[in-house]
Amino acid sequence: MPEYKAPLRDMRFLFDEVFDLPATYAAIGASDATPDMVSAILEEGAKFCEQVLAPLNRSGDEEGCQWHDGVVTTPKGFKEAFAQYIEGGWNGLAADPAYGGQGLPHSLGLVLAEMVGSANTSWGMYPGLTHGAMSAIHAHGSEEQKQTYLTKLTEGRWTGTMCLTEPHCGTDLGIIKTRAVPQADGSYAISGTKIFISAGEHDMSQNIVHLVLAKLPDAPAGTKGISLFIVPKFLPDAAGEAGQRNGVSCGSIEHKMGIKASATCVMNFDAAIGYLIGEANKGLNCMFTMMNHARLGTGMQGLCNGEASYQGAVRYANERLQMRALTGPKAPDKPADPIIVHPDVRRMLLTMKAFNEGNRALTYFTAQLLDVAHGPDAERAAEAENLLAFLTPICKAFMTETGLEVTSLGMQVFGGHGYIREWGMEQLMRDCRIAPIYEGTNGIQALDLLGRKVLGSQGKLLRGFTKIVHKFCQAQAEHPQLKGQVAELARLNQQWGELTQRLGMAAMKNPDEVGAASVDYLMYSGYVTLAYLWLRMAVVAKAKLAAGAVDAPYYETKLVTCDFYFQRLLPRTAAHLAAAEAGSDSLMKLSAEQFAL
Amino acid sequence: MPEYKAPLRDMRFLFDEVFDLPATYAAIGASDATPDMVSAILEEGAKFCEQVLAPLNRSGDEEGCQWHDGVVTTPKGFKEAFAQYIEGGWNGLAADPAYGGQGLPHSLGLVLAEMVGSANTSWGMYPGLTHGAMSAIHAHGSEEQKQTYLTKLTEGRWTGTMCLTEPHCGTDLGIIKTRAVPQADGSYAISGTKIFISAGEHDMSQNIVHLVLAKLPDAPAGTKGISLFIVPKFLPDAAGEAGQRNGVSCGSIEHKMGIKASATCVMNFDAAIGYLIGEANKGLNCMFTMMNHARLGTGMQGLCNGEASYQGAVRYANERLQMRALTGPKAPDKPADPIIVHPDVRRMLLTMKAFNEGNRALTYFTAQLLDVAHGPDAERAAEAENLLAFLTPICKAFMTETGLEVTSLGMQVFGGHGYIREWGMEQLMRDCRIAPIYEGTNGIQALDLLGRKVLGSQGKLLRGFTKIVHKFCQAQAEHPQLKGQVAELARLNQQWGELTQRLGMAAMKNPDEVGAASVDYLMYSGYVTLAYLWLRMAVVAKAKLAAGAVDAPYYETKLVTCDFYFQRLLPRTAAHLAAAEAGSDSLMKLSAEQFAL
Repeated sequence: MPEYKAPLRDMRFLFDEVFDLPATYAAIGASDATPDMVSAILEEGAKFCEQVLAPLNRSGDEEGCQWHDGVVTTPKGFKEAFAQYIEGGWNGLAADPAYGGQGLPHSLGLVLAEMVGSANTSWGMYPGLTHGAMSAIHAHGSEEQKQTYLTKLTEGRWTGTMCLTEPHCGTDLGIIKTRAVPQADGSYAISGTKIFISAGEHDMSQNIVHLVLAKLPDAPAGTKGISLFIVPKFLPDAAGEAGQRNGVSCGSIEHKMGIKASATCVMNFDAAIGYLIGEANKGLNCMFTMMNHARLGTGMQGLCNGEASYQGAVRYANERLQMRALTGPKAPDKPADPIIVHPDVRRMLLTMKAFNEGNRALTYFTAQLLDVAHGPDAERAAEAENLLAFLTPICKAFMTETGLEVTSLGMQVFGGHGYIREWGMEQLMRDCRIAPIYEGTNGIQALDLLGRKVLGSQGKLLRGFTKIVHKFCQAQAEHPQLKGQVAELARLNQQWGELTQRLGMAAMKNPDEVGAASVDYLMYSGYVTLAYLWLRMAVVAKAKLAAGAVDAPYYETKLVTCDFYFQRLLPRTAAHLAAAEAGSDSLMKLSAEQFAL
Repeated sequence: MPEYKAPLRDMRFLFDEVFDLPATYAAIGASDATPDMVSAILEEGAKFCEQVLAPLNRSGDEEGCQWHDGVVTTPKGFKEAFAQYIEGGWNGLAADPAYGGQGLPHSLGLVLAEMVGSANTSWGMYPGLTHGAMSAIHAHGSEEQKQTYLTKLTEGRWTGTMCLTEPHCGTDLGIIKTRAVPQADGSYAISGTKIFISAGEHDMSQNIVHLVLAKLPDAPAGTKGISLFIVPKFLPDAAGEAGQRNGVSCGSIEHKMGIKASATCVMNFDAAIGYLIGEANKGLNCMFTMMNHARLGTGMQGLCNGEASYQGAVRYANERLQMRALTGPKAPDKPADPIIVHPDVRRMLLTMKAFNEGNRALTYFTAQLLDVAHGPDAERAAEAENLLAFLTPICKAFMTETGLEVTSLGMQVFGGHGYIREWGMEQLMRDCRIAPIYEGTNGIQALDLLGRKVLGSQGKLLRGFTKIVHKFCQAQAEHPQLKGQVAELARLNQQWGELTQRLGMAAMKNPDEVGAASVDYLMYSGYVTLAYLWLRMAVVAKAKLAAGAVDAPYYETKLVTCDFYFQRLLPRTAAHLAAAEAGSDSLMKLSAEQFAL
């Protein structure tokens, strides 16, 4: 099983040296996030993830969750780890102090979430879903709802879910069948079946707060007729504690490819008592608060599984002896050389490293935007919100696609042993495979990016980002060592705008052109975004080396990995560009029947 | 679970219309392979695979193989299906009549193997390994060994294995530890441990014939000191039947990501009686006979899993209702349109279709070469052997890489349901994931292609193929509808040669340049090879349409899929070209320690 060590050096590099989060904290008035506090969170968080969560990852996969007569039992140790997590105050780290949180910046919550997800993705689903529910209640709940539910969720004694999908619909929420019938006391009777509900039922908390999409009897058709309801497993009693059991039950759990220790539940609502949250028929807007949060988290899963896989692969490549280097023996005292001497093994490791560290930079970049978006400067907050809206589908889809590639390469480095369960490498790929699917498939993310965000804003959201890249390229155009790569980034950045213009023109004539280009457009966007972030890291690394940094090997490694990214991975933009420009003709020509010929 | 239907129409298109295998059969004197016989094999084979093997695929995955005290039990129904297969005479289809086979062309054996592997990959491993052992004994065994073992293997009452890998070595067979000590009676006492032995122990046959690599006491070091031995589980008695138990036993079976119904065994040889096959210290050559056979079969696994996945995905895309087409409702009487109306779903399906049908064409192309290589015309046979040597690593690696992409897309079409075991889509991806690893990892295939085959022949083996492509492009240069694509193929074909020359020059200065470029070089080669085969199919389809073919929709579908391949997939050559030319600098610069920074 790959042993997990939190990559604290890389985290600090981004935190302190590349993005200067301390300055952001000062600007947004996050005075509690002192350097000491940040260090404590990184180090204590790492300890918890390495020592408590990581050892439960393999056993959790083998045991899975068990369903018996409506009761779900999580794997051994999961409940105890959750108790320790709550005890340590981790759950409310970035939550509102008005409801029991510690009020630390959101970026710190994401840093912690990376470590949790890398150590044990399945376990991380339980607090992850809770955080999503907390965001929605915080943004849309009444004060009474916040006092009743948000406080308990923040504390972690209760956990949350988001109940969207039904057997006949996932993407297409406009056709949900779950009904909410108004009751005399102002509550609603919720009836219907929801599927794929992560953490829908389990044994880790005293109560489970379901956020459920349902339709009122007089609701308009489609997505404009969906409302959001709070449906607790146990109704709060007079003291606000979990009281009478509500009419919600878990009918079964799914047997899945991976994240087996995360309970994926069929939830039956049988005239369950629910409370409207936010306005009637505006449920989808409220749900998007949760989903945007969740999409950043899901994107990060690609990084988490990728990081764990990389750590395992590097260790194995240093230990496994097989064949001699083509340039002559490197370990002549041993029967063969460690496989890390072979160029193709290095190609695989560097691909993993370049994606992981690029994706981590993207995570921190968005984390910083999240802080600014929650900060006091309205103008900067609005700008950050726009950038977040633009980057969220890229984070979700690009990071999960590349994360899947990384976990597959990690298996490949292990050869046959990568396919054997006990080594833990194949679990990482199985766990990662859900990430391009859930929280809106990557195809949906791509439509969101190109259709809704970019073309829907007449290119404004794109220009908000390409302008930043453009300014960076102008500022670094004469960089003595990096100017070649800066020029390449500038070229791709300009090409991005031109591609978008052509697609916009085509889409005006034929709406299918958006769907025909969207996934390749998103992947192109992801590669360029990472190129920008890799150069930002390289500029810092060059400066540190020039200033005589003590840990020169770290910075040199960054620069080599940046070279590798530009030489070996960024050229994939050419393939995505060609595909994005190919148009919809060959896609739309066949009848449905012809596909089966 | 995706229901499997053998793609007989596509098979006949390649068989009769594109490659004209009947003409090949006439040329090699395969008079038994009459059109009636071929039809019977295709139809009866399809029936057996669809009705007997496919229904055991999901249950086989869930049950897996069980090990108890050295005895391995295969999933319910596996044994009975094998008995039926033997009864039907399928096992000896392409085997030598001198030892009980039917002597039909090898290409027919591959056609059958595609259907078997698509219906049930795990089950197909048992006859697959047996065929490998049969090839090796046929090529290198003594007449007595053939009479004793090959007859039983052909009949299918006994099955075979290949025992290469040991705990400390897989790729690097030069360092194996298994020892063979000569005995007074001319036999050898074999001692050692082999791992990852597919079909090493099971309950489907009366005896298991292990082909084992081991070292003689006085053997030279490295791969030149390896010999091959026949080590039967039960020693043949006087009547040639399975007699006394030999000193070989199964210590355990592996728990794997997929192909769970294929028993992957740890085999312990404890002074087991073995018989030298072929010459002493030439075992690796003998083993390569098996491996080349096995590599074509493994490459086909990408096609098999991909085909099964595609069939499931097309059916689901026609049934699943979700969202309206962007151009307006297509099924206004239903709550939503079937997802096959969405361009991005079509992009995924066409990617799957283009790879599957391209990979099938590659399979039939090599199958035809296999027939010619076994045919009576020595000059043509030698030419076919060279082409096979060149194409084998491409088949193995390109078809498994793309097969893995196809099975992943198949899951993606299903959305969340793709991740759930009962639908069967995720099993196909798990089963497929081994194919880029076993029978020589794809990294090893790439070194074999670029280092051994292409540069090792001073480019001769490459030119043997690019010349064929060049002639085809010349002949079709003025094709009224296809000339644009012909020109693109000609450009890439020429570029292939130029790339090879540059890599050859670089490799002369630095051997690491081969390993640095090899995988991207192989993928480039695969995309160009498939482009050639797609155009061969397109030329036939155009001609059939011009001649007023009755099943015009089939041919039109071929042409659209060809367009899609050229527009959307072939441009990936640009990315692989850039990566292959990037050189070894950024790969080799880091110390082993720096990878962990």
